[in-house]
Amino acid sequence: MSLNQLLTLSGQVNDLLNASSILSWDARTMMPKGGSETRSKQLATLTVAARDLLCSDQMKHALDGAEKDVAGRDDEDPQARMVAQVREAITYHERIPAELLRRKTELGGIGHDLWAEAREKADFSIFAPALKDMVAISKEMAEAIGYEDHPYDALMYRFEPGTTTAELKSLFARLREGMLPLVRQIGEAQQPEAEFLYREFPVEAQMEFALKMAQRIGYDLHRGRLDTTVHPFEISFTRNDVRITTRVNPRWMPMSLFGALHEAGHAMYEQGADPAYVRTPLATDLVGLYAVSGVSFGAHESQSRLWENHVGRSRAFWQNHFADIQSAYPGTLDDVDAEAFYRAINRSRPSLIRVESDELTYDFHIMLRVELESRLVEGSLSVDDLPDAWNAAMKEYLGVDVPDDAQGVLQDVHWSSGQIGTFCNYTIGNIMAAQLFETAMAEQPGIRTALDQADYAPLREWLDDKVARHGRRFGRDELLQKATGRTLDPEPYIRHLTSKYSEIYGLAA
Amino acid sequence: MSLNQLLTLSGQVNDLLNASSILSWDARTMMPKGGSETRSKQLATLTVAARDLLCSDQMKHALDGAEKDVAGRDDEDPQARMVAQVREAITYHERIPAELLRRKTELGGIGHDLWAEAREKADFSIFAPALKDMVAISKEMAEAIGYEDHPYDALMYRFEPGTTTAELKSLFARLREGMLPLVRQIGEAQQPEAEFLYREFPVEAQMEFALKMAQRIGYDLHRGRLDTTVHPFEISFTRNDVRITTRVNPRWMPMSLFGALHEAGHAMYEQGADPAYVRTPLATDLVGLYAVSGVSFGAHESQSRLWENHVGRSRAFWQNHFADIQSAYPGTLDDVDAEAFYRAINRSRPSLIRVESDELTYDFHIMLRVELESRLVEGSLSVDDLPDAWNAAMKEYLGVDVPDDAQGVLQDVHWSSGQIGTFCNYTIGNIMAAQLFETAMAEQPGIRTALDQADYAPLREWLDDKVARHGRRFGRDELLQKATGRTLDPEPYIRHLTSKYSEIYGLAA
Repeated sequence: MSLNQLLTLSGQVNDLLNASSILSWDARTMMPKGGSETRSKQLATLTVAARDLLCSDQMKHALDGAEKDVAGRDDEDPQARMVAQVREAITYHERIPAELLRRKTELGGIGHDLWAEAREKADFSIFAPALKDMVAISKEMAEAIGYEDHPYDALMYRFEPGTTTAELKSLFARLREGMLPLVRQIGEAQQPEAEFLYREFPVEAQMEFALKMAQRIGYDLHRGRLDTTVHPFEISFTRNDVRITTRVNPRWMPMSLFGALHEAGHAMYEQGADPAYVRTPLATDLVGLYAVSGVSFGAHESQSRLWENHVGRSRAFWQNHFADIQSAYPGTLDDVDAEAFYRAINRSRPSLIRVESDELTYDFHIMLRVELESRLVEGSLSVDDLPDAWNAAMKEYLGVDVPDDAQGVLQDVHWSSGQIGTFCNYTIGNIMAAQLFETAMAEQPGIRTALDQADYAPLREWLDDKVARHGRRFGRDELLQKATGRTLDPEPYIRHLTSKYSEIYGLAA
Repeated sequence: MSLNQLLTLSGQVNDLLNASSILSWDARTMMPKGGSETRSKQLATLTVAARDLLCSDQMKHALDGAEKDVAGRDDEDPQARMVAQVREAITYHERIPAELLRRKTELGGIGHDLWAEAREKADFSIFAPALKDMVAISKEMAEAIGYEDHPYDALMYRFEPGTTTAELKSLFARLREGMLPLVRQIGEAQQPEAEFLYREFPVEAQMEFALKMAQRIGYDLHRGRLDTTVHPFEISFTRNDVRITTRVNPRWMPMSLFGALHEAGHAMYEQGADPAYVRTPLATDLVGLYAVSGVSFGAHESQSRLWENHVGRSRAFWQNHFADIQSAYPGTLDDVDAEAFYRAINRSRPSLIRVESDELTYDFHIMLRVELESRLVEGSLSVDDLPDAWNAAMKEYLGVDVPDDAQGVLQDVHWSSGQIGTFCNYTIGNIMAAQLFETAMAEQPGIRTALDQADYAPLREWLDDKVARHGRRFGRDELLQKATGRTLDPEPYIRHLTSKYSEIYGLAA
């Protein structure tokens, strides 16, 4: 049967992409320094091999037959969806000329060193010429991929299929309206005490506690492991092997703890996928050429944010686990109580650096990037004017002055490899997290009761049932519609932030 | 130019095979238990992808052109050799029907569990049916590959190209003649004291000292790393990333130390390959589908044995480093001196288990296996008669009685995956090691002087120059001919063992 042949071949594509992920994990955790040059070549070969197999004549032949095999089945039938996704991915890749892909890859290879040097010297002009080329290639890429309304839509497709610039514009306007007053009021309010978070927390004890908490909320170590890296991440090699990393600062304990909870949230998404989908297109992003079960980068972020923020930064969590953290660091937190700890880890202050920002101000860093990226791509902003535009937006949104480009426009690694169109995922994830969490609480009051008793299984099961197990079977909005009765809706997120921060900072409603 | 195209494609084959090696390393060192099933599929896909690319129409087309490109060049020209090796590998793989390969792979998958159960229960009859199938498939494989004299020659080709059963028969006869008298005499001699090797050596201190000594002899950690595993091994992902593992027994220190020196010897072979050969057929075993620069498994073993035995178990080495090992384990070896240590680590006693045997008795374990394997393949021994034949040979060679099959015919993992034809590598390695070491000493007396002063660079440079840098450019015998003026010669090895053990045990000449 052609369908079987299609699944055999797409299983091999999944294997190649998982191999690529294993090589990436190794490069970031274990590889000796000398290995980097040949490792890049190995990674490139694996991606090309996966793409070539996906777009091969034998795959297309199997696909033609498989489409007949599933004809007439229910639209939501998993196998019908698998077949449709292979078709969609082949169509996507064949729109991009090999020569354009090659130029983009080459530029990505050069860009990183220029970006690193520019950031080191806080001198945007070093990186500007490469970024100009990247914007130009991104425009070409957008034209090749195609779009209805805005070229930026085409670039976001790989990361957040279906999301449009217009949709983000209206979402962002609503977020600003809801969140800016909070930011302003907190700017004038009394900050909670947080000195105790900067005490000395031994590295090994931090790793042990972070892993303990990750397992406590449901991360399965039989199919996972925790390591340390400069930039924390989660990566999976099928649902059977899903790894996380965190980073440890001996004088800033929240970094390792919330990093691990965040990545464990990502990991549980992958670990929760239906075992029947392993190695199938429902566990493979064939458009992005990445072996992942999560349906979009934003959907993935929703799971990490939900566990990090809605669970890990909640009052109930620390009422239950403050004694645990006290005994993890004997003598260090004896003069602190659960309530003070809860307030300290939820402190909000405008900051320059995205990855160091708090739950409330984080999205402003994202809006700024999405807005600037889309203007670069549409041509209404030039690369030369980018630093000024960046600094003006930081002032407008967060009221901060950017002292130099290293702490401003050069801070993120994304553009160094020509990656444009991915920042929206973070804010979409925040919105989805609140929407899912609010629905879970309303639908099953027992989940809240359980959370209050440090029992995370009911929430995890609800999320597995509504999100994780489906893998890539449903699109993001389809998934949201089934789980919450509507598509992306910023209101639960604004309600969550308003209620939480008003209470912590004693703001007027 | 077709040659460039050939090198691009063979570079991708190398990348795929290196990716496979990285996945194997990860599976043995880092992977959580849950990952094993999907990892097997990923590994299979990578090997098939490498084989398919090697035997693809585009590769053959490039090869046809490349043969014209290098026509008329010197026979030893590296590029001419690359082209010839691609041709040889394609010819080899095309002789093996896909259906036969599939049956062999499937049987390998089943065999391991049956073997493990049989060994667990010390019951050969559990494994016998699978082994019968494996012998039958090996015979089919030998017929497909082709041979002049003996079907076992065809099976050894993957591991030790050019070696014949007839050649081994005569080598083994000479080894027995030279070594059996030593084994007999030592059986009646006084054993050196070795109690102190079984004292308590902390695990972390062992790892630290093992790594220190590996680096001391020349293992480059910028392009390597050391981990612990149940079975020690070396594996490379190009010369830029060559990793080793060792195992640690807190009450038997030589295991970690000599394990690390052994694997460092393998590693230095890979690290010493000519940088110009990276990703080329001269750094890829295209017949065995394994990304390695060493020219045969025996040649590889020669480097590990040379550093482990001729250097690491030499008197000079411990005259220089005994103080180092004393300070690595404070207080543990205070009542021991360098001479006593040297004698203890060179103690020889017949034993049941190959991997636990000493320098002198090791080869008898190998001869036994090679002889039984070749008889199984030629049909002069049946699988049912194998345990009796094993036990008889153990009695004849080493004078030991095998108490059960777990400590006899079932001890090695090799047959569980249908791997027949690889044991000869160990003895060939021992012979080559002595031949190369004796030549180095005779040719450059300064190397001995340097070794006496704990300077390992001159020996390493000689080996790099004569062996490592050539990668797979020359065949094993060609390499030996250039380095020592003759092909495989057992006399230096017999001289080495006779002189060393006569001296330690005070035997009559």
